[in-house]
Amino acid sequence: MSDTPRSLLITSIGKAFAPRPDSPYRVDLLQADCLYCREGRIEAWLDSASQAAEIEALRRKGLPLCDASDALLLPGFVDSHTHPVFFAHRAEEYEMRNAGRDYLEIQRAGGGILSSRRSLMAADPAELKARVRQRLKRFLRLGTTTVEAKSGYGLSVEHELLSLRLLKELDAESPMPRLYPTLLAAHSVPPEHREDREEWFRRINEQILPVVVREGLAKHADAFCEPAVLSLQETETLMSRAREAGLGIKLHAEQIESAGGGALAARLGALSADHLEEIDEAGIQAMVEAGTVFALLPGSTYFLGMERWAPARRIIEAGGRIALCTDFNPGSSHIQSMPFILSLATCRLKMSAEEAVWAATAGGALALDAAGEIGCLEPGAAADLCLWPFQDLAQLPYTCGDNRPARVILGGEVLGQEE
Amino acid sequence: MSDTPRSLLITSIGKAFAPRPDSPYRVDLLQADCLYCREGRIEAWLDSASQAAEIEALRRKGLPLCDASDALLLPGFVDSHTHPVFFAHRAEEYEMRNAGRDYLEIQRAGGGILSSRRSLMAADPAELKARVRQRLKRFLRLGTTTVEAKSGYGLSVEHELLSLRLLKELDAESPMPRLYPTLLAAHSVPPEHREDREEWFRRINEQILPVVVREGLAKHADAFCEPAVLSLQETETLMSRAREAGLGIKLHAEQIESAGGGALAARLGALSADHLEEIDEAGIQAMVEAGTVFALLPGSTYFLGMERWAPARRIIEAGGRIALCTDFNPGSSHIQSMPFILSLATCRLKMSAEEAVWAATAGGALALDAAGEIGCLEPGAAADLCLWPFQDLAQLPYTCGDNRPARVILGGEVLGQEE
Repeated sequence: MSDTPRSLLITSIGKAFAPRPDSPYRVDLLQADCLYCREGRIEAWLDSASQAAEIEALRRKGLPLCDASDALLLPGFVDSHTHPVFFAHRAEEYEMRNAGRDYLEIQRAGGGILSSRRSLMAADPAELKARVRQRLKRFLRLGTTTVEAKSGYGLSVEHELLSLRLLKELDAESPMPRLYPTLLAAHSVPPEHREDREEWFRRINEQILPVVVREGLAKHADAFCEPAVLSLQETETLMSRAREAGLGIKLHAEQIESAGGGALAARLGALSADHLEEIDEAGIQAMVEAGTVFALLPGSTYFLGMERWAPARRIIEAGGRIALCTDFNPGSSHIQSMPFILSLATCRLKMSAEEAVWAATAGGALALDAAGEIGCLEPGAAADLCLWPFQDLAQLPYTCGDNRPARVILGGEVLGQEE
Repeated sequence: MSDTPRSLLITSIGKAFAPRPDSPYRVDLLQADCLYCREGRIEAWLDSASQAAEIEALRRKGLPLCDASDALLLPGFVDSHTHPVFFAHRAEEYEMRNAGRDYLEIQRAGGGILSSRRSLMAADPAELKARVRQRLKRFLRLGTTTVEAKSGYGLSVEHELLSLRLLKELDAESPMPRLYPTLLAAHSVPPEHREDREEWFRRINEQILPVVVREGLAKHADAFCEPAVLSLQETETLMSRAREAGLGIKLHAEQIESAGGGALAARLGALSADHLEEIDEAGIQAMVEAGTVFALLPGSTYFLGMERWAPARRIIEAGGRIALCTDFNPGSSHIQSMPFILSLATCRLKMSAEEAVWAATAGGALALDAAGEIGCLEPGAAADLCLWPFQDLAQLPYTCGDNRPARVILGGEVLGQEE
């Protein structure tokens, strides 16, 4: 997002719920119906019953006003795992899978990550940028004010850098969600390097990573740590190098096989391990001890037609901190809506409304190393807010299939309601 | 919906897909990019390449124009099973269920149908009407142009009639989806009649049904045919009486137990049996032979956190005709979005995009005894249409969690885009 800090006075808030950045799953009901945002940040909570004079003084300053009309106020969602930089949809692959074709058949028919790579490489860069822009703006309309966005469909030096530079350009536009770009060159080993995998890793380390660091193109690096894609050893080598270069680490892990990716994330000091449908007890313990965030993506389990959901209750019982994310991508989760992820988190992962809301806000912020800055209502945090047409928190995940905030506020600016 | 027939010329249609009312699951791509709607109905399809003169002649008439901007055109959805006449949400019950409480515990805590009955009985009728109005308008925004709407939370002579009269009043407003009201007094036996069930059935037959017929308050009658609610015999007696009174018949059947409700629907000549998660092979055969529509409600399976999906593939193989519906209600399916039902129909029921689209349009029309009138693009049918921002049909179910048409046309009138 661009840098135009705004001040704002929000009045007539019905209820404001504050996920606590330092206390997993704690979401407090605030005793205030008025919020003063100053220069894009949360400045002070005020209650019209006891602080009428202070509120009146702020009104007299001529601040922009927002009447919340008794809506429920929450921080905007922090979606800490998405893949929005793709060109073509893959609806035909979805159709094949539902007709019973397996992953290998779909790959033979030209599907999978490599299909996204082909269409991205063939795309007109301006048209690619227009599509990514449209997707990022759609996140905003759905209440997501911070989006982690991965490369990973380029899978060449040129197209990985193109993907990240495109995000940097979009980040300067307004309105645009706060973007946290992630280098995911290690999404797959491209076909031309299948016989010499080390050559692809060398290019990542020598030709991509230094440029990413020099141009400030990514905050984090990620790798698809699955036996069928990258081994534990390959992942560790790549991610250690990225960490040395100054990037935070995230891992795709334990989606297909229980193979130790969660424990590796813990050992590497990663911010999060993501997916984790197949994580075992030892992996959970290792991540809890290291403080690694459990980024859960129930949208892909749903979208792939699978029944094995990530063990959210077990993770919560063990003291783990969960971030909920859409995993938005054209192959395994064509889902941008965090409210739908909250639906899945409650009726499939069996999280409570409070747990799910915490994980979709404060949990996402933790997974981006931004706790206290976004995904919360603490004074000093970004004034990224959603107004929901509900009386109670429980109505948010209960409203399923089409659920958007009544209003979205980004850095203190009330956004328009464009479709 | 009120009666203001409109004419309209729609141009620049990208692709138009026509579900065929007489051929289950057949959805034809039309060779025309221009549609002339006359007095609220589909009049003629025209192609700008070969019929430029005819199109120009229509333009010169000064008809309202709609530029479809290369969108995909489909008939509006026909949702043939909803319960929109309720007052209070039941989010707390959803939360309890996800926390592992069973149905009986929820009932003891005051949940279930009777909780909706209590809140409806206590509601201010004007406020109840306002809430139902808002829900019905929301169906329109989501692309549903015809809504079957059941009573069944009144469960007294007074409140069942109040529920249906309210729908009749709303039906006169505009814009409003086409409403097909259904008498569902047999949703449950109210507590005051538990010791003398026949007394409730006598009231339905003698005090509700005659008024419904006299005032034209419902087209169909429905009963919750489950061993725990109404026996097969009770259902048969009640529905035979409703049929004699001139109403079409629909049944809630085989959701909880496989108990022969599908076969009963077939024997009664019902339009549809609805739910059917537990239907057995004999039930499927009986319904196929009788031509009874299989109304499937995957939203409730999803929302209740269950894994047993209705056997859609088996029904299709057997030659059965499916209608897809939201089952929108505050307890077991707080879902108004037919696009989300298409998502469930594809990735969970394993229907193809064409099958799902047919079942959500032409199939719904069949279940309302309105084949050829709604849910299709035949000349003479209602000009109830949606424009979707897609190139291909497969993108519709593939876009999950938040998916609305770009524009909705009802009886030839292009509706506004209000949120």
